[in-house]
Amino acid sequence: MISAPRCTLLQATEELGLCKTYNTGEMETFSYDDRDNFTHSDNMEIFLTLAEKQYIVKYELEGLRAQRDVRIPGLDDKYTLHHRDNIWQKMSSAGVVVDTFPLHNRVQLKELGKSWYSGNRLSQPLDSVNAYFGSTMGFYFSFLDFYTWSLLPPAILGLSITYLSSEVQKEAVEAMAGLEAEIHKEESGLAISGHMVQAVFSMLWSTVFMELWKRRSSSLSYRWGTLHLAERFAEPRPSFHGDLGVNPVTGRVEPLFPEWQRDLRMALVSIPVVGLFLGMVVLGMLCFYWGENQVMRLHEEWDSVVSQMLLYAPSVLHIVYTNVLATLYKTVAQSLTEFENHREESAFQNHLTAKVLVFTFFNYFAVLFHIAFVKQDVALLRKRLASLLLITQLVNQVTEVVVPFLVDRFVSAPHRTESEDDPEEDKFRNQIKLPVFPGLFAEYIELLVQFGYLSLFSCVYPLTAVLLLINNVTEIRSDAYKVCKLFRKSFSAPVANMGVWQIAFEVLSFVAVMSNCWLLTLSPQLQRLHDEGHMSSTNIVLMAITAEHVLIIVKVIVAALIPDEPDWIRKKRAHMQYTSMQALRQQNLPSEEAQISFNV
Amino acid sequence: MISAPRCTLLQATEELGLCKTYNTGEMETFSYDDRDNFTHSDNMEIFLTLAEKQYIVKYELEGLRAQRDVRIPGLDDKYTLHHRDNIWQKMSSAGVVVDTFPLHNRVQLKELGKSWYSGNRLSQPLDSVNAYFGSTMGFYFSFLDFYTWSLLPPAILGLSITYLSSEVQKEAVEAMAGLEAEIHKEESGLAISGHMVQAVFSMLWSTVFMELWKRRSSSLSYRWGTLHLAERFAEPRPSFHGDLGVNPVTGRVEPLFPEWQRDLRMALVSIPVVGLFLGMVVLGMLCFYWGENQVMRLHEEWDSVVSQMLLYAPSVLHIVYTNVLATLYKTVAQSLTEFENHREESAFQNHLTAKVLVFTFFNYFAVLFHIAFVKQDVALLRKRLASLLLITQLVNQVTEVVVPFLVDRFVSAPHRTESEDDPEEDKFRNQIKLPVFPGLFAEYIELLVQFGYLSLFSCVYPLTAVLLLINNVTEIRSDAYKVCKLFRKSFSAPVANMGVWQIAFEVLSFVAVMSNCWLLTLSPQLQRLHDEGHMSSTNIVLMAITAEHVLIIVKVIVAALIPDEPDWIRKKRAHMQYTSMQALRQQNLPSEEAQISFNV
Repeated sequence: MISAPRCTLLQATEELGLCKTYNTGEMETFSYDDRDNFTHSDNMEIFLTLAEKQYIVKYELEGLRAQRDVRIPGLDDKYTLHHRDNIWQKMSSAGVVVDTFPLHNRVQLKELGKSWYSGNRLSQPLDSVNAYFGSTMGFYFSFLDFYTWSLLPPAILGLSITYLSSEVQKEAVEAMAGLEAEIHKEESGLAISGHMVQAVFSMLWSTVFMELWKRRSSSLSYRWGTLHLAERFAEPRPSFHGDLGVNPVTGRVEPLFPEWQRDLRMALVSIPVVGLFLGMVVLGMLCFYWGENQVMRLHEEWDSVVSQMLLYAPSVLHIVYTNVLATLYKTVAQSLTEFENHREESAFQNHLTAKVLVFTFFNYFAVLFHIAFVKQDVALLRKRLASLLLITQLVNQVTEVVVPFLVDRFVSAPHRTESEDDPEEDKFRNQIKLPVFPGLFAEYIELLVQFGYLSLFSCVYPLTAVLLLINNVTEIRSDAYKVCKLFRKSFSAPVANMGVWQIAFEVLSFVAVMSNCWLLTLSPQLQRLHDEGHMSSTNIVLMAITAEHVLIIVKVIVAALIPDEPDWIRKKRAHMQYTSMQALRQQNLPSEEAQISFNV
Repeated sequence: MISAPRCTLLQATEELGLCKTYNTGEMETFSYDDRDNFTHSDNMEIFLTLAEKQYIVKYELEGLRAQRDVRIPGLDDKYTLHHRDNIWQKMSSAGVVVDTFPLHNRVQLKELGKSWYSGNRLSQPLDSVNAYFGSTMGFYFSFLDFYTWSLLPPAILGLSITYLSSEVQKEAVEAMAGLEAEIHKEESGLAISGHMVQAVFSMLWSTVFMELWKRRSSSLSYRWGTLHLAERFAEPRPSFHGDLGVNPVTGRVEPLFPEWQRDLRMALVSIPVVGLFLGMVVLGMLCFYWGENQVMRLHEEWDSVVSQMLLYAPSVLHIVYTNVLATLYKTVAQSLTEFENHREESAFQNHLTAKVLVFTFFNYFAVLFHIAFVKQDVALLRKRLASLLLITQLVNQVTEVVVPFLVDRFVSAPHRTESEDDPEEDKFRNQIKLPVFPGLFAEYIELLVQFGYLSLFSCVYPLTAVLLLINNVTEIRSDAYKVCKLFRKSFSAPVANMGVWQIAFEVLSFVAVMSNCWLLTLSPQLQRLHDEGHMSSTNIVLMAITAEHVLIIVKVIVAALIPDEPDWIRKKRAHMQYTSMQALRQQNLPSEEAQISFNV
């Protein structure tokens, strides 16, 4: 069990560029020399959060470098530490260090749980989540929170559209005996606006939502002191390999791997393999349709119980196929990215995320896009979307929470019964038996797919937002429970935003404009106008293109008009930059400053 | 006449963050403490360029601030300098300083002119231009150079398409007597590809061109030492006004102007006024068409010489109207932006540029877009484009060079006859009689409009690139002559790229995709296919949309695949950042460093 003294903690706080409360009550970038002016800088319990302290200990451990060549006692000669070797990394590869993980704090965890998932409160204790789990987790739950509440307007709109259109239909049926023509006109007028209102609304909503989230995100990052994080020169990943050479950036001798070789590997291996998997998704879809047709024909011929059962076979097979493919792909993506041999951890993560994102998009949306763009069948799209929403959400909740919970309760728990009287050390040891936290990747993917259903296709099924809202309110609680109870605590570097996920959501909201405009041309009302000869199909398509271009321009303008940061954050950030520039100038020009003060 | 001592020059070089040649032969950010390791740092004639020295003198003058309250002798009490008042600004407003401008260096200027516009060389002495005029001018001429040579591929393509299609037409005419059907088929096949090849090529060309320019631009900025310019906190513009208050960023007392008030002024005044002017452009266009119709009818009725003359009236009136409107708009845009009361010079310039750009786009392209999208008349578009290209280029060359040259020769020159024996001081005084250099705004606009003709509409008139190429080869020389001979030298802050113009060109190349895809649907071959019933108009439009989306994706991918900076520049920049981070860390942790060296 390792901890750090106050002086190291404070120096690392400065090095990371964390902001803390100054004696003026505002957040300022922490400076070690000026530490006495920061509130609570003498009390590490309050000054730094648990997550920050744990991260700093890890940061310092991983930054340790050998000052000269040294043999590690009891180990092979090949594990000799050379000058500037990373000690922690070498020890890990030698097997001296088996695992490093931060410990849960029972008292804080209990308190956090009480205010988070036990009660019936609507708001989450985001500050405590950030303090306990770090800002990565803090941003995920804040986004989940913000997203869930942002679903209210589309949910209300969806409900009212559904209500109105069923009302209209009822009226229409009732009045069928009466003035048929007039009612018909009225209905088509109202229903057009329903479909269109939903499409235009969901496009604008997704833009405004992302812009407001950016503002919220930057206020959070101010609040959590990560607004002005120091840039650091990234060390190579442990598994990065290459010929030894002089790094042109640092001038140090370290493994080098030429850029063109990595590009070559990406072009010749990664892209074809990813393409192959995408092809297999399409193939699976085609086989599914083919199988469905075959089974349908068989059923018509035989018309027995067996053939009745067989009707479900293609769906089941397709679901199994998709899941196997997704699991396989995850492993393949990991090894492909490993093979690309990225130097920095961030580059590795970005390439891995990009690979998984492309596949996920394809895997989840290929069928829907196929129905919308190739089959052009709005009714089928609506049915498919509704069933997907219900099934995936159920499956997710079960696999994410129920399974780990059961495993924890019945498989793992018996091995770590724990009483109040156990020595503290045993309790710590028990934590190693918990499974490692798998990261937030799957959680973000789930949100992204949800957001995709909503922004891409919700105009054909207005209740999407309602279903998502209900799902997310429970999701918040189940995720919170999972994170607190079922996994080991994990290290979390301070971050200032959601990173690459922000971009993924924004790309999706752009694709949404195109998808919605296309779906508009398929709206039953426009189709009827076409069939009745009021509008040529060319005109409908031209209308949709115009709408698409106008809406994209509106989107860009709205995004530009809503600043990414609230005004006060902008000023605050400028102030921090100004202060650090001034500090730099003063360090650089000591002679001149002295001269000036002499003159005065 | 003011100059600066070596020590001041060197310190300002560090403050601006200029890069200079280190003793390793590579460029490094200049550091005053390490000055002896930079080559030529003892010889200011070689170490700094003329433009840099002149800018530094201005920079230092404008940075002078009063240390305490002081009265300026011989001036009113309201001109009393208060603590931290900007001395130069106050002196200028008091009329003590009438004008500040850098002097030409006759010897260097003569040499520069010889290698620039006198000879028949194809390449420009860009490094000398940068050294003498500064990097703003350096980047303009480099861009002009790069752009002109980039016109070669589209010019060659345009020539061959024109040649081939006239060949085909000739053949077609000759063979008309023979196998009519077969030739017809061949012709349509070839001409389709001509039109389409040109459209697709010009879209891809504009993307690749912009990406390659970015790379070239970053190499230039490395070469000219502006790769790693220091960010400085911008001082308010002299004409910025507002209530005195404490600036939240600097903590100093200075005029403040609330953001919402500026936004209000933009929303309620600037946007409506700009909209009004855009409306007047459209109105002018409509009047022109109406007038043309009227005159045509009159001519048919009267059929005399007078009515023949009247035929030209609408065109002439329209040109006069457009020019008057453009001149008026320039003044209005200036005062609107002044009224918006921007604090920083950069914000002022950006808003002014944006206003002028929007209007210029409208003014130059409204007629062409109207013909392409509303009238859908390819033949008229071709005619109009050709005449616009010829006329605007002629007019530009005349107004830009010939008029100033004549004015200079016959109006100004007699007043400043100058002989070798004149005292040096008189020669300096003579320079004040030259007109002030109006900036590169008009030059960039001209290039942008050219680029617009080429990328937006060139598929209907393949010879566009050829005409532009010829124009630009002379433009380089005439601009060079103008800058050297006809105007005062101007101050030029070191810059790392073209700034806002880069964005304007990129936006234009995006609009180009849409315009070209639309023009494809109007191509005579597709129209014929439609008329003959081979393709429905819906299919043609759908094809164009698909092409548009695919090409935009290709464009984005190409832009992502070509890195904005060459690999070696990227490494260089990372190295510079790494060095400055290391320096910062060493300054921050002197105690730790000492401890470590003790341990070793």
